[in-house]
Amino acid sequence: MKITCSKSDLVNGVSIVSKAVPSKTTMDILQCILIIATNGIIKLAANDTELGIETQINGTIEDNGIIALDAKLFNDIVRRLPNGDITIATDSAYQTQITCMKAKFNLQGRSGEDFPYLPEVDRSDSIAISEFSLKEIILQTIFSISDNENNKIMTGELFEITGDKLRVVSLDGHRVSIRKIELRADYGSKKVIVPGKTLSDISKILTGDVEKEVSLFFMQNHIAFEFDDTLVVSRIIEGEYFNVDQMLSDSYETKVVVNKKEFLDSIDRATLMIKEGDKKPVVISINDDVINLKIRSVIGSMDEDIDIQKTGEDLMIGFNPKFIIDALRAISDETITIYLENSRAPGIIRDEEGKYVYLVLPVNFNSMA
Amino acid sequence: MKITCSKSDLVNGVSIVSKAVPSKTTMDILQCILIIATNGIIKLAANDTELGIETQINGTIEDNGIIALDAKLFNDIVRRLPNGDITIATDSAYQTQITCMKAKFNLQGRSGEDFPYLPEVDRSDSIAISEFSLKEIILQTIFSISDNENNKIMTGELFEITGDKLRVVSLDGHRVSIRKIELRADYGSKKVIVPGKTLSDISKILTGDVEKEVSLFFMQNHIAFEFDDTLVVSRIIEGEYFNVDQMLSDSYETKVVVNKKEFLDSIDRATLMIKEGDKKPVVISINDDVINLKIRSVIGSMDEDIDIQKTGEDLMIGFNPKFIIDALRAISDETITIYLENSRAPGIIRDEEGKYVYLVLPVNFNSMA
Repeated sequence: MKITCSKSDLVNGVSIVSKAVPSKTTMDILQCILIIATNGIIKLAANDTELGIETQINGTIEDNGIIALDAKLFNDIVRRLPNGDITIATDSAYQTQITCMKAKFNLQGRSGEDFPYLPEVDRSDSIAISEFSLKEIILQTIFSISDNENNKIMTGELFEITGDKLRVVSLDGHRVSIRKIELRADYGSKKVIVPGKTLSDISKILTGDVEKEVSLFFMQNHIAFEFDDTLVVSRIIEGEYFNVDQMLSDSYETKVVVNKKEFLDSIDRATLMIKEGDKKPVVISINDDVINLKIRSVIGSMDEDIDIQKTGEDLMIGFNPKFIIDALRAISDETITIYLENSRAPGIIRDEEGKYVYLVLPVNFNSMA
Repeated sequence: MKITCSKSDLVNGVSIVSKAVPSKTTMDILQCILIIATNGIIKLAANDTELGIETQINGTIEDNGIIALDAKLFNDIVRRLPNGDITIATDSAYQTQITCMKAKFNLQGRSGEDFPYLPEVDRSDSIAISEFSLKEIILQTIFSISDNENNKIMTGELFEITGDKLRVVSLDGHRVSIRKIELRADYGSKKVIVPGKTLSDISKILTGDVEKEVSLFFMQNHIAFEFDDTLVVSRIIEGEYFNVDQMLSDSYETKVVVNKKEFLDSIDRATLMIKEGDKKPVVISINDDVINLKIRSVIGSMDEDIDIQKTGEDLMIGFNPKFIIDALRAISDETITIYLENSRAPGIIRDEEGKYVYLVLPVNFNSMA
């Protein structure tokens, strides 16, 4: 193989596919990036067997071929080369020479033979969405997946398409995050659970451009995302997702409208009173037009009043402050509305238009009552 | 005690004195920041017994007093408070209330009684230097001190004043860094070894402003630095510093003039071929108007030519690439001059005016010859 491409294209491509290089693996070859030069096209690929990423880069091919190079080393080398054209040439023993201006690196590559190929993509069942919307919807929900591999379904997110609506749901047993967006066409009805790691990786690769499109392809065991010159293919998680609709109730006893930043900053301050691993709740007392936040621990106590608009009953309820903080950070609205039933029922933050719902279970605050 | 000051003043003051809070200590009280409100002046102080820092902040005193507060917690709290006036009030049991707008923190403070005071500063023997120059001269030499506590002298830097010149020297047994600047007056002759940690901390506090002055006070066992509203007092290291002048030779066999950035980038790339902890040298071959850099390891090899202007003999010499990189990063000149004797004698990088000298011992490169 012998190819030449610009440093910037190569750096960009390597950075994209590196997301699919596993940090730990028993299969050495997976720690490599595969370079494939054939049919006039240069592709980079990486694959951790759950998730595969392939991206095309511009360049010229002098000799067709395939080579696998250690991902970390290759990444480091291309980043530190001078700005200019980089030539990668291999011999029959997979010795690889990387040349840029007067700098020459020699390293031992590997045959691409053992490298697992990406599954074939069936393009018959697909939807289109802007890079911006996909990136946003992932970042606004990804924090409430579970990392407990014993409940595999909770480690993924539900992508549910109903007509021209896409609803994305994540939950971890303590809270539920739901985001809904409109699609530009009616795509019938589909449901798929996408691994959280795949979504997290994709959110890092997506430029977030409003003008650029991502195509999602739905297959029996896989989902694929195609955008720019990149293809991401991921296994999906098998099983039936939780029925979140039955967790959501429209009835409430107390409705609170509050400035988001004030509320967020205050809870954020309150967490200073919690030692790591300690499970102290923040206790919220709603009295007329004031929310009082209180937290008490071995470190000390914190107490703050925030002005609100209240409808309904006064109420006292405890929450894990981290869960409220995560939800508030995912909302860009200036004011938010919280719906509460009683001190043992979940608190729900949602907007009028149904674009988002964040549900958080309360915690016991007996020790502080 | 009861004081009020602005959030920004408090954040700034706490950040300055925090540099003297030890990360580990058997004396709990040293992990505190002391607030002293007396004679109309509010001071913050911290002291790790080697190094003490005291800074004044603006504010109003309602009740005089002293309180010691856990440095990390206090720092976190003041940073996360809203922008506004912060009131700190203590009671006779050292219970401390920190209030800002509607946010109230309560924490247990400690008596300031056990807190070690900063040594009295004798202002009779002093020099003045700009914040800019002091910060620069520290950053340009601090990397070549030793962290080996068995040779205490090497963990500090020599500050040597001769008339209107200040020379700062650091060395670690493999290399020597020397910087010289002119002072605005003749200060006679002084020599003192300042702990590296003190200098590193000061470099982080100094604004680097050309217009602002630092006063250095020389005492029997201490050195003090006074700037803005801050006083830093440090123990000095006892003993006789190494005679560096006898290590420097003006004679050379080979003189090389090279573009600093090209040379630095190339050596930096070469280090990619070295696994951490491995001691592979970069081998430099000087042939006519070209330097060739070569490094070879189990990972692979790297090879690069750089154009130079040479006077004298051709030469091949090996260096620890990190030492050359450190020196080059400390030099802002566009081109640098390297003086070499032979492959077993140190390489010296110095300018014509004698503002800097960086000496690096060579390493054996037999395995690659």
